[in-house]
Amino acid sequence: MSRRLRMGMVGGGAGAFIGAVHRHAAALDGQIDLVAGALSSTPEKARASGRALGLPEDRTYGSWEEMLERELSREDRIDFVSVVTPNHMHYPVARAFAAAGIHVISDKPLVTSSEQAADLMRVVAETGVVFAVTYNYTGYPMVRQARQMVRSGQLGELRKVTVEYHQGWLAEEQDEATNKQAGWRTDPARSGLGGAIGDIGSHAENLISTVTGLELEAVCADLTAFVPGRRLDDDASVLLRFRGGARGLLTVSQVEIGAENDLRLRVHGTRGSLLWRQEDPNHLTYDTLGGPRQVLTRGGPGLSEEAQRATRLPAGHPEGFLEAFANVYLGAAAHIRAGLEGQGHTPDYPTVEDGARGVHFIERVVESSRGGEKWTDAVWTGGQGQMATTRQE
Amino acid sequence: MSRRLRMGMVGGGAGAFIGAVHRHAAALDGQIDLVAGALSSTPEKARASGRALGLPEDRTYGSWEEMLERELSREDRIDFVSVVTPNHMHYPVARAFAAAGIHVISDKPLVTSSEQAADLMRVVAETGVVFAVTYNYTGYPMVRQARQMVRSGQLGELRKVTVEYHQGWLAEEQDEATNKQAGWRTDPARSGLGGAIGDIGSHAENLISTVTGLELEAVCADLTAFVPGRRLDDDASVLLRFRGGARGLLTVSQVEIGAENDLRLRVHGTRGSLLWRQEDPNHLTYDTLGGPRQVLTRGGPGLSEEAQRATRLPAGHPEGFLEAFANVYLGAAAHIRAGLEGQGHTPDYPTVEDGARGVHFIERVVESSRGGEKWTDAVWTGGQGQMATTRQE
Amino acid sequence: MSRRLRMGMVGGGAGAFIGAVHRHAAALDGQIDLVAGALSSTPEKARASGRALGLPEDRTYGSWEEMLERELSREDRIDFVSVVTPNHMHYPVARAFAAAGIHVISDKPLVTSSEQAADLMRVVAETGVVFAVTYNYTGYPMVRQARQMVRSGQLGELRKVTVEYHQGWLAEEQDEATNKQAGWRTDPARSGLGGAIGDIGSHAENLISTVTGLELEAVCADLTAFVPGRRLDDDASVLLRFRGGARGLLTVSQVEIGAENDLRLRVHGTRGSLLWRQEDPNHLTYDTLGGPRQVLTRGGPGLSEEAQRATRLPAGHPEGFLEAFANVYLGAAAHIRAGLEGQGHTPDYPTVEDGARGVHFIERVVESSRGGEKWTDAVWTGGQGQMATTRQE
Amino acid sequence: MSRRLRMGMVGGGAGAFIGAVHRHAAALDGQIDLVAGALSSTPEKARASGRALGLPEDRTYGSWEEMLERELSREDRIDFVSVVTPNHMHYPVARAFAAAGIHVISDKPLVTSSEQAADLMRVVAETGVVFAVTYNYTGYPMVRQARQMVRSGQLGELRKVTVEYHQGWLAEEQDEATNKQAGWRTDPARSGLGGAIGDIGSHAENLISTVTGLELEAVCADLTAFVPGRRLDDDASVLLRFRGGARGLLTVSQVEIGAENDLRLRVHGTRGSLLWRQEDPNHLTYDTLGGPRQVLTRGGPGLSEEAQRATRLPAGHPEGFLEAFANVYLGAAAHIRAGLEGQGHTPDYPTVEDGARGVHFIERVVESSRGGEKWTDAVWTGGQGQMATTRQE
Repeated sequence: MSRRLRMGMVGGGAGAFIGAVHRHAAALDGQIDLVAGALSSTPEKARASGRALGLPEDRTYGSWEEMLERELSREDRIDFVSVVTPNHMHYPVARAFAAAGIHVISDKPLVTSSEQAADLMRVVAETGVVFAVTYNYTGYPMVRQARQMVRSGQLGELRKVTVEYHQGWLAEEQDEATNKQAGWRTDPARSGLGGAIGDIGSHAENLISTVTGLELEAVCADLTAFVPGRRLDDDASVLLRFRGGARGLLTVSQVEIGAENDLRLRVHGTRGSLLWRQEDPNHLTYDTLGGPRQVLTRGGPGLSEEAQRATRLPAGHPEGFLEAFANVYLGAAAHIRAGLEGQGHTPDYPTVEDGARGVHFIERVVESSRGGEKWTDAVWTGGQGQMATTRQE
Repeated sequence: MSRRLRMGMVGGGAGAFIGAVHRHAAALDGQIDLVAGALSSTPEKARASGRALGLPEDRTYGSWEEMLERELSREDRIDFVSVVTPNHMHYPVARAFAAAGIHVISDKPLVTSSEQAADLMRVVAETGVVFAVTYNYTGYPMVRQARQMVRSGQLGELRKVTVEYHQGWLAEEQDEATNKQAGWRTDPARSGLGGAIGDIGSHAENLISTVTGLELEAVCADLTAFVPGRRLDDDASVLLRFRGGARGLLTVSQVEIGAENDLRLRVHGTRGSLLWRQEDPNHLTYDTLGGPRQVLTRGGPGLSEEAQRATRLPAGHPEGFLEAFANVYLGAAAHIRAGLEGQGHTPDYPTVEDGARGVHFIERVVESSRGGEKWTDAVWTGGQGQMATTRQE
Repeated sequence: MSRRLRMGMVGGGAGAFIGAVHRHAAALDGQIDLVAGALSSTPEKARASGRALGLPEDRTYGSWEEMLERELSREDRIDFVSVVTPNHMHYPVARAFAAAGIHVISDKPLVTSSEQAADLMRVVAETGVVFAVTYNYTGYPMVRQARQMVRSGQLGELRKVTVEYHQGWLAEEQDEATNKQAGWRTDPARSGLGGAIGDIGSHAENLISTVTGLELEAVCADLTAFVPGRRLDDDASVLLRFRGGARGLLTVSQVEIGAENDLRLRVHGTRGSLLWRQEDPNHLTYDTLGGPRQVLTRGGPGLSEEAQRATRLPAGHPEGFLEAFANVYLGAAAHIRAGLEGQGHTPDYPTVEDGARGVHFIERVVESSRGGEKWTDAVWTGGQGQMATTRQE
Repeated sequence: MSRRLRMGMVGGGAGAFIGAVHRHAAALDGQIDLVAGALSSTPEKARASGRALGLPEDRTYGSWEEMLERELSREDRIDFVSVVTPNHMHYPVARAFAAAGIHVISDKPLVTSSEQAADLMRVVAETGVVFAVTYNYTGYPMVRQARQMVRSGQLGELRKVTVEYHQGWLAEEQDEATNKQAGWRTDPARSGLGGAIGDIGSHAENLISTVTGLELEAVCADLTAFVPGRRLDDDASVLLRFRGGARGLLTVSQVEIGAENDLRLRVHGTRGSLLWRQEDPNHLTYDTLGGPRQVLTRGGPGLSEEAQRATRLPAGHPEGFLEAFANVYLGAAAHIRAGLEGQGHTPDYPTVEDGARGVHFIERVVESSRGGEKWTDAVWTGGQGQMATTRQE
């Protein structure tokens, strides 16, 4: 290892769940130091949060603009910024840092419109910065294993993909005063077009795309806001058609009482099937034509090189959400480090294009839900050239 | 108990899976004797099967027509007939016996068109025979428990219902010579309009309807035949809209490798959720707003009278598929017996109307899958008057 | 099939759980008719129970002695008797019927002392009657599968066997007036030397012995009666040593709140391991050195002929407790039928020797628990000659 | 937060599984920096490992003695040392640092004899250093929840405690050249008296003791070395008797093929039962007399303050082994920090006394296994006074 990387953070102050997640994920492997932050849009709160985290006074900024300006003037400036604000702020913040040549790790969904996404892709292409989007579920070793098995043809030709992402925490009307998370997530001005479909549906889309490489052709969606007064969907069911004839189903909900963070993926081909569940992430169920069910286990026998690289502990020692999240950070850090050392590198993390494709997906699903036609075109052409590069395996 | 009932069987000869199931189900409680049969459409085979089952020679018939005629002339004629033929024969056989005043237990789907269904309902109404359709999954005690909980309002107002029914046994092209089941099930002439949607989708529809009482308004379906050369769907995804605003999802597949008989039901309301899985039928997962998950267990604490009545064994002593199937037989037998004793009776088994509604559902789904409009009307008006009677609880 | 067999029953009247189980098990396959019964030690109750079951008046007896005498005088006498009384009555009843040449199916534990067991073995050997003991758990197809895998050497040399059998229904003091089961099971005069160790420990011993064929050398037991005032153990932990160096552990409890009928078996060898759980009886977990975990499924791929013979339904259609119980009846019935037809037969059901070995086991464990020495000899020599015959595979 | 703590490490160089675990655990919460190390007993290897970890050259030491001496002379000396050597080196290293007034976090088992343990306790008492032993499984939030529920009397009076800890990685003869872990663990000179009973049995003992507070009276053990040539046990079954009448069972094995890190705890009282499994650590199964089973979930409803404090993520976002391990570090760090700030503090981590009691347990079990008497006294009197203090809740 060369030197530890220096990280700044925008958003993620006291009470923000996802800020702490990013900080744990960055810290876990001892390769990254959080050295600067603009942790809240309220300067006072930003400074209090910085103090609570032990940030140096002079790098605890009252706004992200101040942070960008002052960091650029430092010798020991931050190597990258983590953007963990509500959705509507992803675009201005990420764009400004990227344009200034500072690498970016952004939470999802990338931005709130395809226009913003296209612009951001352009900036990233021009400046050459590393840009990662924290589709963290793809960081799980057994998701990497699934990707390797599917893409190497172990399941045969794909027929059907089902992804479900169910939660129950928005089953009741939420009071923004008491639940900061619920507040902005159900507000179109800050969350974007999609409610549940944006918040967790984008994870679901990314999981399908990452594991299978299938390209969407069309969607048929039914979005619902079950809780009275809610302005964005809290439940969505989407039929999927992929190029080449595979079919799929994507369902998300935030009103299924009892569901915690129940993301599951099932992939079925002509030769076998896979099942993965985020709440039991260390296992992958593998069925074949005419053989008994196999339960593959992280750190266990028969895993791919790819899965092993993403693994920290032996089998039976559960890894969880933070380790997977940290794998996204490790992926981006490796790319940044390669740049520092002037070496070539093949990205292995969700890129700005993954983010842009996710935004496009949300838009098409919302469009489909509003319309009376059965199938809505959902082909994404935005970044195929570059995708081919970053997804090569 | 008064006397044991006398049962005849049409279809279900050697090699037919479902015939043996009906016989076990009928035998389990020691209340029914199989005394006559026309067990195959091939007279020779019919007689060989009768002999293998120990039926008396003179009641082992070469055709169902012969059986009907000769049994009607006997003093000790059969009380009811079980119809376990391929789908296309349900209608003529069941109609003829019902018209002659012999009670009927028929396998599902009831018939292959709504016209046949309407005619059959008419005959049943005129003759007053007991007519049960073996939607056997509703015989499970924990399904009865779910029905009681949902209908008594324990989940609050219903929001979303998901039923999945996944199998993998048709993932490959089947040779009818070697797989009798696969043969007729994938042949439109014998199976009807629906492939998987008819064979197992009708169970799925019935499960939703029985447990929740929700009435369908519209469906949006995508049916696929994945296996090359297959003439009927082997996979179906259907979005559902119910009267009153609840939404749903029904998916069936017979090409998901590794899936055995994976029927699951999830019901979500404003106050709680239920999950039931056919492959683990003795448990019911119950979630409430703000409480820990509960796992209700057949024979265990807190179960409804309704579930207890359907139970034979203490908790922890697994009951299975045959016991649930036998509960449908017990339900029909109780009604037949009430008739023998001149007593009134409230049916507690799936009736001819359940069967007719199932046929209507299959037709609407197939229609939806063929069309380009998003929503296809699926309101069923066929038997509402009578439904109100037979479903009262 | 030749003719249906005629069954009589001693014990098992109204309110007796196990009587109904035997009747369901006998009825399930349509090969056995219950035709006579002495269903209670109280003549009045015996007759009421007979009536409720639809038995003919003239074969509803007030006592087992009467039943034996009168049945012997009939042309169409019972082929076998099922003995489902409290434990202390197994011996006199079973002995009398066996001595009269009537085949016997007896509940477990066989009798309440080794002396009785030896005498019964003698009578069975002299009369040549079929004598089955309903160690019903060995009737499960996946237990048969485990037996085949272990005995064919698939696990390598056995190292360790663990069997647990945990229930919670005796966690509180029981009132015999309201709980007939609890009453006699905790009364030494009717239950015998062992409480939990007799009631369910004998199942556990039989499961080990049946699956592995290992022969016990010594036991080290700690028996406890946790509930105040209880005169027999309600919890037992037993260390086991087998001939050849394998070790084991057998634990039973009836005071583990929440446990229903939680019988599990784990077998570990030099090449692999098996795990089976009675509450999920259709699966068998199979681990090998260096391979992924496999979940074998009843009716699924790769099962032995032996397991398939014990199976009625396809995979995914759960079989349960009654089906396994019925397999013991089928095994005994096949032997009885072979006798009727003058054919040779290799028994495939738990025999009188299995029962005798179980009684010996209970005695040795109770002895160990009372003593201060670490190891108590538990070698069983009672019936080895005959065992060799009946256990051949 | 005041300043970040400075950590040194002895042992844990390249290839040592547990060193990396300690480093991740220390890093996770961003409160501790690894600044110095003597990472191997081979100076060259120590320095290579230091470089790989990005340690400063001048604090990468060739031996622990050098590290101790040089660190003591620094202004910015380490606050504490983590001792992650093979077992036999715990004592000299931990003793030297503790005697020099440097806080210690030591891996388990504490030392290899009760004499060493007593000496170490004396040193710790004299110097007043913080001394934590990484019985990491007690760091899991749901173990904290279990502890709170048991100790507050929610299960009633305890009757029975069962802990199992099963692994399979030593099922075959290991080559030390290729498996560093297996090498020293099966070597009495480096591992101590116990094989599996020392390595994982001490975790099991600590889990019982931490959760229940029960005090052992006697043990009856059967230790086995199944693998030919192995000098220490690889499998152990131990009957337990506790003060006050509770009974228990502790089994450990490292030769159960297929077992990964299968630690489970079951606690049964007069009013309820708990079950916890390390491989599914975010759940806790809770059974009560007469109620349905409840599945408590980390971060979910109804959890104790104690469990919530140990939690980083919302329910459904799996936490794992490292988070639990990090909780032990956080506990020790809080105590160290309280000292820096001159504040009082109640330890909430496994202390030197827990470690000493664990060593005593191993000795008594080994003694029992060697002897012919049934029960071997296992009362521990070593540190009761202080225990009372550190365990107060």
